[in-house]
Amino acid sequence: MAPDSLALLGARLRTFAAARDWQQFNCPKNLAMALTGEAGELAAEFQWLTLAQSEAPEPERLARIQAECADVLIYLVQLADRLGFDLIDAANAKIDRNDARYPADRVRGSARKYDEY
Amino acid sequence: MAPDSLALLGARLRTFAAARDWQQFNCPKNLAMALTGEAGELAAEFQWLTLAQSEAPEPERLARIQAECADVLIYLVQLADRLGFDLIDAANAKIDRNDARYPADRVRGSARKYDEY
Amino acid sequence: MAPDSLALLGARLRTFAAARDWQQFNCPKNLAMALTGEAGELAAEFQWLTLAQSEAPEPERLARIQAECADVLIYLVQLADRLGFDLIDAANAKIDRNDARYPADRVRGSARKYDEY
Amino acid sequence: MAPDSLALLGARLRTFAAARDWQQFNCPKNLAMALTGEAGELAAEFQWLTLAQSEAPEPERLARIQAECADVLIYLVQLADRLGFDLIDAANAKIDRNDARYPADRVRGSARKYDEY
Repeated sequence: MAPDSLALLGARLRTFAAARDWQQFNCPKNLAMALTGEAGELAAEFQWLTLAQSEAPEPERLARIQAECADVLIYLVQLADRLGFDLIDAANAKIDRNDARYPADRVRGSARKYDEY
Repeated sequence: MAPDSLALLGARLRTFAAARDWQQFNCPKNLAMALTGEAGELAAEFQWLTLAQSEAPEPERLARIQAECADVLIYLVQLADRLGFDLIDAANAKIDRNDARYPADRVRGSARKYDEY
Repeated sequence: MAPDSLALLGARLRTFAAARDWQQFNCPKNLAMALTGEAGELAAEFQWLTLAQSEAPEPERLARIQAECADVLIYLVQLADRLGFDLIDAANAKIDRNDARYPADRVRGSARKYDEY
Repeated sequence: MAPDSLALLGARLRTFAAARDWQQFNCPKNLAMALTGEAGELAAEFQWLTLAQSEAPEPERLARIQAECADVLIYLVQLADRLGFDLIDAANAKIDRNDARYPADRVRGSARKYDEY
């Protein structure tokens, strides 16, 4: 069975932090704060683009966007790992709830329903 | 071979959005902005906790933290999907760079190096 | 001489916190984290709007935007107060630097220069 | 009567943007997004500090914190200006509501009440 990509990433991050004795800084509050910092840097890449421009960023910007998304994921995985829950399970539970709250045939194409979502 | 959890999540989110005709709202700029909103809600769960308290949130708070982390992941997966790159590859590339920049034997336990990181 | 509006706001927030014995929670790290939470809620109000729609939000949304901006200002004023610096001085120093870096006759109307700024 | 500091700042920012023909980029959605970016950079200054360390940042960090707070204020003032509301009025309205919701003699020193606030 192929090892799961997210599980492998989590294991790699644990090894990385342990080798540097950096787990001491990685309490959940700090990780959540670091995640907002990276989310802010990600937002900054898009802040002056039109919606259409954001669909096709130039190569240098796209590379920075990928790096910022990587940083968000890295902190998210470490946060879930530190608090002992499974990110994929949490995401699926959330989509289950959204599936029930927003039946496709009632909300199709509705910006209002999307906005509430 | 077991399907990869993150790939399955991406596929599920594509189906969810398509069934509701909601891809029209999911341009990268909007997704990045939504991600910062969720990151902010995640931060809010930790804002008045001490570092020690953040290690063991009470059950209700932990459930909200899981839901906020799920939301961050959901927007992150959709953003990478929309821009056509692989999140795990991006994260591994970032860790490769960090591995080279912060050799374990030189930065061990150093808050300063960690801070620069 | 009319008292300055921002100075009055700072004084009011000090009184508010002191009356509740809440200064103990208001360390700079916590205030900065609370500010990102409010910034995230502000972003959430705009996340699915087009740029044009964001110019004229409907009344209920505008009221929420005002409340979120108020929250950001409230934490910002408390943070500067706690760290002992003057927000207006800091903002003017920043605009001085931007004035020097972005001479009007060289950057006029340029998205690129704006983006760097 | 002394001119009000926040009103002066707003006027200076209008002049700055007009001289560069940059108002075209300053729609409320973009300004809100830029604000979250600056809030994220502010958070990043505090992310690995303990609560106690955050009370007395070293001089270089304090200078960066002041610059990030300045950026948050600059975008906040421009956003309120663009949408035509008064930030101080909005903040006072919010404190009025908080005054009514959190009577001092009932919530004094309570982290729980503070957390709900």
